Amino acid sequence: MPFMARPRASDETRRKLLEEGMEAFLKQGYHGTGLKEVLDRVRVPKGSFYNYFESKEAFGTATIEHYADCVAAKLAAAMDSAPDPLGGLRGFFEREMRAFEAADFVGGCLVGNLGAEIEGSPIIREALSIAAKRYRDGIAEVLRQAQEAGQLRRDISADELAALLVDAWEGAVIRMKIERSLLPLQSCLARLLDGFFKP
Amino acid sequence: MPFMARPRASDETRRKLLEEGMEAFLKQGYHGTGLKEVLDRVRVPKGSFYNYFESKEAFGTATIEHYADCVAAKLAAAMDSAPDPLGGLRGFFEREMRAFEAADFVGGCLVGNLGAEIEGSPIIREALSIAAKRYRDGIAEVLRQAQEAGQLRRDISADELAALLVDAWEGAVIRMKIERSLLPLQSCLARLLDGFFKP
Repeated sequence: MPFMARPRASDETRRKLLEEGMEAFLKQGYHGTGLKEVLDRVRVPKGSFYNYFESKEAFGTATIEHYADCVAAKLAAAMDSAPDPLGGLRGFFEREMRAFEAADFVGGCLVGNLGAEIEGSPIIREALSIAAKRYRDGIAEVLRQAQEAGQLRRDISADELAALLVDAWEGAVIRMKIERSLLPLQSCLARLLDGFFKP
Repeated sequence: MPFMARPRASDETRRKLLEEGMEAFLKQGYHGTGLKEVLDRVRVPKGSFYNYFESKEAFGTATIEHYADCVAAKLAAAMDSAPDPLGGLRGFFEREMRAFEAADFVGGCLVGNLGAEIEGSPIIREALSIAAKRYRDGIAEVLRQAQEAGQLRRDISADELAALLVDAWEGAVIRMKIERSLLPLQSCLARLLDGFFKP
């Protein structure tokens, strides 16, 4: 029935839905976000949401993947403009902190927030696990380069350093949200990157 | 009108509401928890909730305080049964891990979860900030004793070590929830308490 063919789901609308979903989930949590408000902001009628995603859970999963892509792109950009691995990593975290401050400390990290909030959805948990591993692996790769450049200690593997750094950063991001201050993040970096991780 | 006096709010019912609230907020998040289900479980009619708390927000705040009391009591109990400060702290974290495992990794830390999830409530944020500080101060006190006993390095203040340990632990708890595994927590303790924090 070619005359009744459904409109082809546009990639652009899908991307806008993911952007709005990321913002809303970050600021209001998963359960605190209604699909209707996301759709309203992108001006997509409720009925056609299902041309893009089959459920709120599938939308959440795609949003987490999109967030992981964004973080990977930001890390790559910070590395590209840096003179050396450690400088790039510091630049990445500096930009994150400036963005948190600009957002008045609302939001934080989508993976941390949803990981803390959501139980009972194995699909979302799997997406969070993959996103967290991508983040950790990206940081580990930079730490490995910094080790090879003699900027960081080599007696502990880059993977282990990355796991500690990312866990501590995630905990510090939550404390930043609670205290509305960058101090927890600055202390985390000072104590690890500029402290225990030194050669 | 003495014959129509409202029943005096019972301390026991209030305590049960806080226990159920703690469980529900831990497992379902703040926005994912309806007051009705908490009331049903304690067999309190909806109308009389307001004899105990003036709003969901006030209930959330009281639940966070109750949770902080519980954590402080668990830390004190672990210290009481330990031969030395570091042993007590390890015992505390061991018990936390056994409880997480028994709960099938559902829940985690109420302060971390609500800190990650909730925006827009200055009252709850204040309660979280106080609870997080109590937790951090409790851990710092034990670390200070361990420093004095020569069990931990003394070139960094106990307050700073506690902030890093608690932030890293909180991040690792979220990763535990995502990965359904104690490994992140075990790595955190091995790397900090048994690693960087050593004299």
